[in-house]
Amino acid sequence: MRLSRYFLPVLKENPAEAQIVSHRYMLRAGMIKQQAAGIYSWLPLGFRVLNRIQQIVHEEQVRAGHIPLLMPTLQPADLWRESGRYDAYGPEMLRFKDRHDREMLYGPTNEEMITDIFRAHVSSYKDLPLTLYHIQWKFRDETRPRFGVMRGREFLMKDGYNFDLTKEDALHAYNRHMVSYLRTYERMGLTAIPMRADSGPIGGDDTHEFLVLASTGESEVFYDSAVTDLKLGQRDIDYDDRAQVADVCKEFTTLYARTDETHDAGLFEAIPEERRKVGRGIEVGQIFYFGTKYSESMGAVVVTADGSRVPVEMGSHGIGVSRLLGAIIEASHDDKGIIWPEGVTPFPVGIVNLKQGDAATDSACAAIYKALIDKGLEPLYDDRDERAGAKFATMDLIGLPWRITVGPRGVAAGKVELTSRRTGESEEMSAEAAVARIAEIYAAHR
Amino acid sequence: MRLSRYFLPVLKENPAEAQIVSHRYMLRAGMIKQQAAGIYSWLPLGFRVLNRIQQIVHEEQVRAGHIPLLMPTLQPADLWRESGRYDAYGPEMLRFKDRHDREMLYGPTNEEMITDIFRAHVSSYKDLPLTLYHIQWKFRDETRPRFGVMRGREFLMKDGYNFDLTKEDALHAYNRHMVSYLRTYERMGLTAIPMRADSGPIGGDDTHEFLVLASTGESEVFYDSAVTDLKLGQRDIDYDDRAQVADVCKEFTTLYARTDETHDAGLFEAIPEERRKVGRGIEVGQIFYFGTKYSESMGAVVVTADGSRVPVEMGSHGIGVSRLLGAIIEASHDDKGIIWPEGVTPFPVGIVNLKQGDAATDSACAAIYKALIDKGLEPLYDDRDERAGAKFATMDLIGLPWRITVGPRGVAAGKVELTSRRTGESEEMSAEAAVARIAEIYAAHR
Repeated sequence: MRLSRYFLPVLKENPAEAQIVSHRYMLRAGMIKQQAAGIYSWLPLGFRVLNRIQQIVHEEQVRAGHIPLLMPTLQPADLWRESGRYDAYGPEMLRFKDRHDREMLYGPTNEEMITDIFRAHVSSYKDLPLTLYHIQWKFRDETRPRFGVMRGREFLMKDGYNFDLTKEDALHAYNRHMVSYLRTYERMGLTAIPMRADSGPIGGDDTHEFLVLASTGESEVFYDSAVTDLKLGQRDIDYDDRAQVADVCKEFTTLYARTDETHDAGLFEAIPEERRKVGRGIEVGQIFYFGTKYSESMGAVVVTADGSRVPVEMGSHGIGVSRLLGAIIEASHDDKGIIWPEGVTPFPVGIVNLKQGDAATDSACAAIYKALIDKGLEPLYDDRDERAGAKFATMDLIGLPWRITVGPRGVAAGKVELTSRRTGESEEMSAEAAVARIAEIYAAHR
Repeated sequence: MRLSRYFLPVLKENPAEAQIVSHRYMLRAGMIKQQAAGIYSWLPLGFRVLNRIQQIVHEEQVRAGHIPLLMPTLQPADLWRESGRYDAYGPEMLRFKDRHDREMLYGPTNEEMITDIFRAHVSSYKDLPLTLYHIQWKFRDETRPRFGVMRGREFLMKDGYNFDLTKEDALHAYNRHMVSYLRTYERMGLTAIPMRADSGPIGGDDTHEFLVLASTGESEVFYDSAVTDLKLGQRDIDYDDRAQVADVCKEFTTLYARTDETHDAGLFEAIPEERRKVGRGIEVGQIFYFGTKYSESMGAVVVTADGSRVPVEMGSHGIGVSRLLGAIIEASHDDKGIIWPEGVTPFPVGIVNLKQGDAATDSACAAIYKALIDKGLEPLYDDRDERAGAKFATMDLIGLPWRITVGPRGVAAGKVELTSRRTGESEEMSAEAAVARIAEIYAAHR
């Protein structure tokens, strides 16, 4: 993408309404625009990151054997009356009547609807196990929406639901979700720690939240510092291998890590003092096992091998897709702007032309641009007639992890400069070498 | 995808509520489930096609130089008061109040919001031309939703908006949209004819609708039969070349083709009688040039080269993404089921195992499955323990354009059968040849 043809409305000033760094940088980098309290437009740069995050979530869910579908944003109130939640849910639920006076709502979550889909189409244990998920806009009418996309009202969530014959099967689904979430967050460059959680209004017997450590987090967290060293890495997971999946879960949940809701001072004190940490965390996902809560009330039953009818065992599992942008920025920025991890960056690399209009420099930039596109790595090329300083400031603010700087002197010497946004370190090399290096870096993120 | 692990709830019976073939087949093929009048869940198979269609729309918009973003589903009423449409819009607009009693609506279209984004960030003619678009769920509270996704209430639409300095520039944007739409529909296997249209409540000076001929269409259409022979094909379009783009538009709009709203009996009678056709059509898109209608009322002005301030010239351009599934099926089916064009098929090919459990046959199927996946062509493999007839019926119903049939006798002779869903013709060949043929067929659709 050539910046001269793009829509990247960066702001020079810090917007007054933004209290936390991710909100400030998302506004300044032209990623979002508020349209009403807690309701945002995703401007082109923000939309690209949102898509990258969705893509990673989809890939890891499909890898775990889960099946994507898409439920609508609006739901009939009657479904929620069946589960008893229509009255139980507070004013966070946006309710209204359609032109025929039918009661509707904007879905804050989809347990009822997915159970409705299941009961309409599945009646035999032979069709189990089954895990369905979608990524769809939700609405929760927060009293005080704030922190940009971190606590919006209209937000994008991945929510998945498992249907199993036995509790043992459902707990395997729970474990599958935990492992797939660990991989999902790692691919986004995040350390998200699974912490035992409170079941809350959704109801559940077993539940973990995934928290990203950040000083602006809404939850107080207590943990053994060794938990932040755990990495799933590139290990090969067979999601059908119950023992392997359970072992990974055990590895990631044995060390102490809890939010204030489930904190146990006694257990915490047992951690060696130098590893005992108190901090704050941003919740970016949660997994629940809740058994037959919805299947019983809504009649989602299957016929078993012996002919009996049993309600299915269920769980629901969510990732806060739009809020992840905020969480990633909170975890990865400096005083110049965002530092995108390679997995989610809107463009893999930026090209800065130091002397737009100089034939040799323009042509060197165009060649690098084309070479990157040919490798499937679309760069953002700053081809504007601007000072170098302004171009660098924009690149630093929007946070592309790599920058190729091309100037007339370098071009004469057959050199460009490759700069890491994270370390600030630059290296001179030929244009071909820079393109090859970028391709090599991103090969690990495909 | 192995069918034994998929969620494909096909129905044996014709659903009573479906009046037209696309609605009937989408329900029978397990593509959608109604959740409320005109509100659907997209089950896994339907979701795959919806994604393919979105993908094609995105690719062709980006090719035309248009920039994707994403606006929210909900909008504040105040924006619509500025344009005067809050009161002008009828009961199709879903209106409600949030918990703080602020008036909101579920967006039926986005002229106001995109104009708001533009005026907040663009103030110079140097930032023009600019065309922004999104693909987002809309809501129109139809009195009588019907025909499945063809006239739903919650529907997915691509809507794009151009901002230009002069009327001439805006008409080039109009033409760019026309050409990009022609390519979009052709890639989906559709013949969509641009027809001069009435501007309707949105207001506009120049507008065309794109209609797909189908006996179930909502509009009566009058056209010169020669118009259906026009094809854009693989010709290379430079979207910056105004003359070339205008010539394509002229080529596709010179022959008579109008809906009943703009029909001119005199002009129609001038067509040679044998080419004079009356039929019905499904509207799958519309382009509008409307000048300064919104920019004037909402203050979207830019400073020109001579320092004066002028309202920008605009247009809006839509594609009915979710309704396209219905239109494609109306245009491409037989009495056994859907016949997907290669461009939008949910899976490029199906594999039917005639003797599940037979070691040699299972292993031949697994090898074909893997070979296709390695080529990036994920097949749907019917690995269920079912009769051949039931497997064929399912494949015919869901309409994958190609089927590879693998049985023990063929495997012994080193042969599989490759069958075209469209012609019903089969050909025997080696498994390797079948995989190569499929790869060759789809190379043209990437």
